[in-house]
Amino acid sequence: MKDIETYAADALDRIRRTAPLVHNITNFVVMNSSANILLAAGASPVMAHSPDEAEEMAAMAGALVLNIGTLQEDWVQAMIRAGRAANSAGIPVVLDPVGAGATRFRTAAVNRIMESCAIAVLRGNASEVLSLASDDVKTKGVDSSLALSEEIVPTAKAMARAHGCIIAISGKEDCITDGERVFRVGNGQPLMTRVTGIGCGLSALSGAFCAVDPTSLLEAVTAAFAFYGCCADLAVASSDLPGSFFVAFLDRLYDTGREQLMQGLKIRSKG
Amino acid sequence: MKDIETYAADALDRIRRTAPLVHNITNFVVMNSSANILLAAGASPVMAHSPDEAEEMAAMAGALVLNIGTLQEDWVQAMIRAGRAANSAGIPVVLDPVGAGATRFRTAAVNRIMESCAIAVLRGNASEVLSLASDDVKTKGVDSSLALSEEIVPTAKAMARAHGCIIAISGKEDCITDGERVFRVGNGQPLMTRVTGIGCGLSALSGAFCAVDPTSLLEAVTAAFAFYGCCADLAVASSDLPGSFFVAFLDRLYDTGREQLMQGLKIRSKG
Amino acid sequence: MKDIETYAADALDRIRRTAPLVHNITNFVVMNSSANILLAAGASPVMAHSPDEAEEMAAMAGALVLNIGTLQEDWVQAMIRAGRAANSAGIPVVLDPVGAGATRFRTAAVNRIMESCAIAVLRGNASEVLSLASDDVKTKGVDSSLALSEEIVPTAKAMARAHGCIIAISGKEDCITDGERVFRVGNGQPLMTRVTGIGCGLSALSGAFCAVDPTSLLEAVTAAFAFYGCCADLAVASSDLPGSFFVAFLDRLYDTGREQLMQGLKIRSKG
Repeated sequence: MKDIETYAADALDRIRRTAPLVHNITNFVVMNSSANILLAAGASPVMAHSPDEAEEMAAMAGALVLNIGTLQEDWVQAMIRAGRAANSAGIPVVLDPVGAGATRFRTAAVNRIMESCAIAVLRGNASEVLSLASDDVKTKGVDSSLALSEEIVPTAKAMARAHGCIIAISGKEDCITDGERVFRVGNGQPLMTRVTGIGCGLSALSGAFCAVDPTSLLEAVTAAFAFYGCCADLAVASSDLPGSFFVAFLDRLYDTGREQLMQGLKIRSKG
Repeated sequence: MKDIETYAADALDRIRRTAPLVHNITNFVVMNSSANILLAAGASPVMAHSPDEAEEMAAMAGALVLNIGTLQEDWVQAMIRAGRAANSAGIPVVLDPVGAGATRFRTAAVNRIMESCAIAVLRGNASEVLSLASDDVKTKGVDSSLALSEEIVPTAKAMARAHGCIIAISGKEDCITDGERVFRVGNGQPLMTRVTGIGCGLSALSGAFCAVDPTSLLEAVTAAFAFYGCCADLAVASSDLPGSFFVAFLDRLYDTGREQLMQGLKIRSKG
Repeated sequence: MKDIETYAADALDRIRRTAPLVHNITNFVVMNSSANILLAAGASPVMAHSPDEAEEMAAMAGALVLNIGTLQEDWVQAMIRAGRAANSAGIPVVLDPVGAGATRFRTAAVNRIMESCAIAVLRGNASEVLSLASDDVKTKGVDSSLALSEEIVPTAKAMARAHGCIIAISGKEDCITDGERVFRVGNGQPLMTRVTGIGCGLSALSGAFCAVDPTSLLEAVTAAFAFYGCCADLAVASSDLPGSFFVAFLDRLYDTGREQLMQGLKIRSKG
């Protein structure tokens, strides 16, 4: 099998060549930025949350991305309907548990969604993800209250096995696991936490990478994380201030080429 | 009558001098960008979708812009109420059929709106607009599945006559027609499709041009398209990358003057 | 007591050191920009409008910011629930009456919120705020129809006394009063009115300043206004065009330091 760096470069090429349709039911804060992130990278985003069309849209897409920021009850129901339609159509579902661990409503919503349809990838920050495994973990609004230390990797692996999905945690060194194998991604910049929607955008982009290779989800999500972090590394060289950094980041998502990507990737594989 | 280039420059002056209020009921993805596009060009945007105020807001505005992205049922009803109020007040209504041809819900919503109130301008991409004339045309999410070739112009003219409105289709060479006359606009850049909300922003800006001259809608919409595309042509000279392009585009909407505009316009009139 | 300039610099330090959680129930247009403004300045924003979590979120936050742009009825009810929870928790509530004076629905919503919970700060433009004191004042959509002249200061003071809150009006020279004392802030740029969400972002940032010193609200809000305007003054030196100005403004919210701030402040204290 080819190495993960080559895999990432090939997957990016495939996104740019095929422009996979990524169906998002996401929060109001990031709809614009997530759409721009997907467009810049070469995918084709659509946002559609009405129960009157969520199923039809999910069925024509290459991936479905669910995101529980700015949540309200009727959106949870639309997410479940779209998730089931995606399951029927055989397309991967990415779930971003924004703010899980902050309020009971958010944590419960994630549990309801995961009980009602099969999630392929769960992507969040450390406290959002770990709050789903332990009532002791609390999230500060939508910001993580935990660092992503080596100690939480076993919990992530256990969650991946229990839920039969990829667990993908953003942090200083991201952790992506299918329960057996673990990839750690060292790309990315602390400044990303000072721009809203950067985490949500990564969930959306993970959908695009899953859409072009739904049979290798661990590699697909790792490639998404590494490409995304690599673009941030390149962008911060243009500006280390949040407004201009985000502009440069979109530019890098658009123009980072194969060579530049393979040189910049920082991926560690762990058994 | 003055030529269309002079018309466009005069209309832009009028927007900057009078700051027409443009009432938008638009989608969540583009509310921010559409407001910024209108403000940069000199108009005064307001977003208001509640049935409790949609009529009152429409009645004080110079134009109403309806946009069916991120649609949900109660918004369709608010759009119809606001549309009728705009009809009563005698102000033009612009309709952007985002994603028509992608799901039955979107296509049906456009038909319901057009049966319930008089639309002055229908603006979309080729497959969104043509899906309203033929069940055979499908849209890929919100991206066009059709190029805007010469062959679709007769269909556009027939639709304009059937609905008694301006049909305005964005593409490589935009097509604006009232059913008799046709303007083709060659301004604009392919990069515009890699930034979300650019098409929706043009619908909003078309509202501003209609507001300052509601009796010459064909010319008003053509001027909006040509000014918008001309600003994109100027912006791409600053940057051909999507993040920085959009920043430059807003700057050009604000500072492009009469001379620069008249030099940059690429409008063909066709009988 | 220390002077207001030192107060402002200290308050900013405290925000950057403690990253107060600011809970926003705000409008769709500005959710992204308000979050970015708070993040750039050092605060931790969360947007949550569901009645199912608004109380829980308000109780863990340092301030609650309510904003009635793009209003709909069920959001008014969520605001009232969150406002009461904030009152119980003893955290300050900032209210931004976007578009009050434009429609009866908006004006009535502000009155209902203020009757149902205790507001600490009311921040808007001149016609939004004064429409609450007089039926003769009308707002043009969301843009002020009034200049902030010296004559309206007595009305602002009377409103502050009547409602027992800080009245904070944005304009050429901002006016912040608790009914007794008045601060006027000369920082800020006309270009701020050509970018959407700048006023709403100031309401959000006022929440952050109130969160770090809830016992000195007059000084806290004055500091927020002056810091915000000072960053705009610095940003306009980079660009006087709206797209690039907003990027520079976010950069300045992030990197403006103590010295630069104290040199740039233009605050007048009046009786």
